[in-house]
Amino acid sequence: MHIVSLIAALLQSTASAAAPPAPADPVEADWRAIPDDELMVMTLAGNRRVVIRLAPRYAPVHVDNLRKLARAHWWDGTSVYRVQDNYVTQWGDVTEKKPLPAGVVANPPAEYVGSRYDAVTRMTRPDPYAAKSGHSADGWPVASDGKAAWLTHCYAMVGVGRDMAPSTGSGAELYTVIGHAPRHLDRNIALVGRVIEGMEFLSSLPRGTGNMGFYAPDQVPTPILSVRLASDMPAAQRPHYQFRAADNARFAAWLRGRENREPPFFTVPAGGADVCNAMPPVRKAPVR
Amino acid sequence: MHIVSLIAALLQSTASAAAPPAPADPVEADWRAIPDDELMVMTLAGNRRVVIRLAPRYAPVHVDNLRKLARAHWWDGTSVYRVQDNYVTQWGDVTEKKPLPAGVVANPPAEYVGSRYDAVTRMTRPDPYAAKSGHSADGWPVASDGKAAWLTHCYAMVGVGRDMAPSTGSGAELYTVIGHAPRHLDRNIALVGRVIEGMEFLSSLPRGTGNMGFYAPDQVPTPILSVRLASDMPAAQRPHYQFRAADNARFAAWLRGRENREPPFFTVPAGGADVCNAMPPVRKAPVR
Repeated sequence: MHIVSLIAALLQSTASAAAPPAPADPVEADWRAIPDDELMVMTLAGNRRVVIRLAPRYAPVHVDNLRKLARAHWWDGTSVYRVQDNYVTQWGDVTEKKPLPAGVVANPPAEYVGSRYDAVTRMTRPDPYAAKSGHSADGWPVASDGKAAWLTHCYAMVGVGRDMAPSTGSGAELYTVIGHAPRHLDRNIALVGRVIEGMEFLSSLPRGTGNMGFYAPDQVPTPILSVRLASDMPAAQRPHYQFRAADNARFAAWLRGRENREPPFFTVPAGGADVCNAMPPVRKAPVR
Repeated sequence: MHIVSLIAALLQSTASAAAPPAPADPVEADWRAIPDDELMVMTLAGNRRVVIRLAPRYAPVHVDNLRKLARAHWWDGTSVYRVQDNYVTQWGDVTEKKPLPAGVVANPPAEYVGSRYDAVTRMTRPDPYAAKSGHSADGWPVASDGKAAWLTHCYAMVGVGRDMAPSTGSGAELYTVIGHAPRHLDRNIALVGRVIEGMEFLSSLPRGTGNMGFYAPDQVPTPILSVRLASDMPAAQRPHYQFRAADNARFAAWLRGRENREPPFFTVPAGGADVCNAMPPVRKAPVR
């Protein structure tokens, strides 16, 4: 935690650059492209760019709604209007009166759980919220009760705001987790993605002083200038991202490293970790 | 998550004000005073007040150091110089050259674990980082391997920055958790308290753009105007706080409620929770 640690860490990373690959080091093939229509780019006032990776495999109807909302430029001119400390930052149309574009399903099915457990890894220690947890091959944190499976409410995951059950929310109002994972929301809300760039712009906003972190009348919500799918942006402006695939021994070694931190800083390895402390790496695609 | 939910929640709380007490409702005796010398008040520039509850029972030598540092006004004029997203906000003397006051132990013993498990509650589901976890009677989150016990690195907990092991840090540099609980730090770092007021001032600071969230040269660290023990402040200025005691059936009922959220918002109760999602309530002492 001291500056000394920083310098030591830098020296260590310099040294390892020349060393042979460790078991946890990915090979190039482990980095796989995230499709352009699975990246949503939100631009906040002040040139703050947020990139969200979408999860159409887990919440297809909700993600289809998100794509329609983005293509209709529906979020342009809306705002980030709720920031509740250690919980969520939420955005959309604070009035809840803006009409939805044609084709958007106002109340989709409850896409909270999937029919099968598609994780290829498993955390060593038990999960307080599920029989098991791990990662899907394409880099999502997943939990299961042995029958159904679901995405987990980890930091930076994006979910769909809704009213009281059985409402599921259209996707027009979204939130992201900015504190300790509120895993009690798992299986109760649709998760549709993960913030993979610009999370700090959502997590460091002033907290709302109204009830439940809603901005009070004397607070200024953050304007949303635009939300676009990367696939709808001019090619030169599109962000390109890759996820680290979890279906290989290198990822498994990385995961065991997350569960057992090493000297010289750590002296007691935990022997396990919460899946939310082992979020699969993503990176910007290297420029070819 | 919608405004409608907010209104419903408000209506619900109005209704319950007239209802008989629920099993999870505390009685007055459950609220117990936090001693004045276990409250540390940090004032940041801009009149932002942060109050930290100290944990002398768990880290006596470190907390003794903190009291000496506060009494020497050692932190006055230092700064908050590191904010790493989803990890920690850290403060103290960024130069690491300011001499420590007389009597401060430069390298205390490793007060990472205690000799006995003093929790009076136990979480229903397993903990990914320990054989068991729960709460001490005086409202601290605790984990244990069946032999030793330790405080857990939950959101808003305060720890002591240190160099590589076997350094333990003096307490001059402190951090608080601003993201998902980095429980891998448990048993590797001394925890000395919990932020119980003003956490939002530390969690919403701009993230440091330097390595590991240290502020880069073009960023302005947040000045610390003063740090004082409440017991050293004029009586009229002292904050007064109470913790909710965990040694009673009402707290146990509250905890089961945290593990099983209820309709109308929730339709699937989790059947368990992470101890960091069940942080014991604290409140300002009512004015008599």
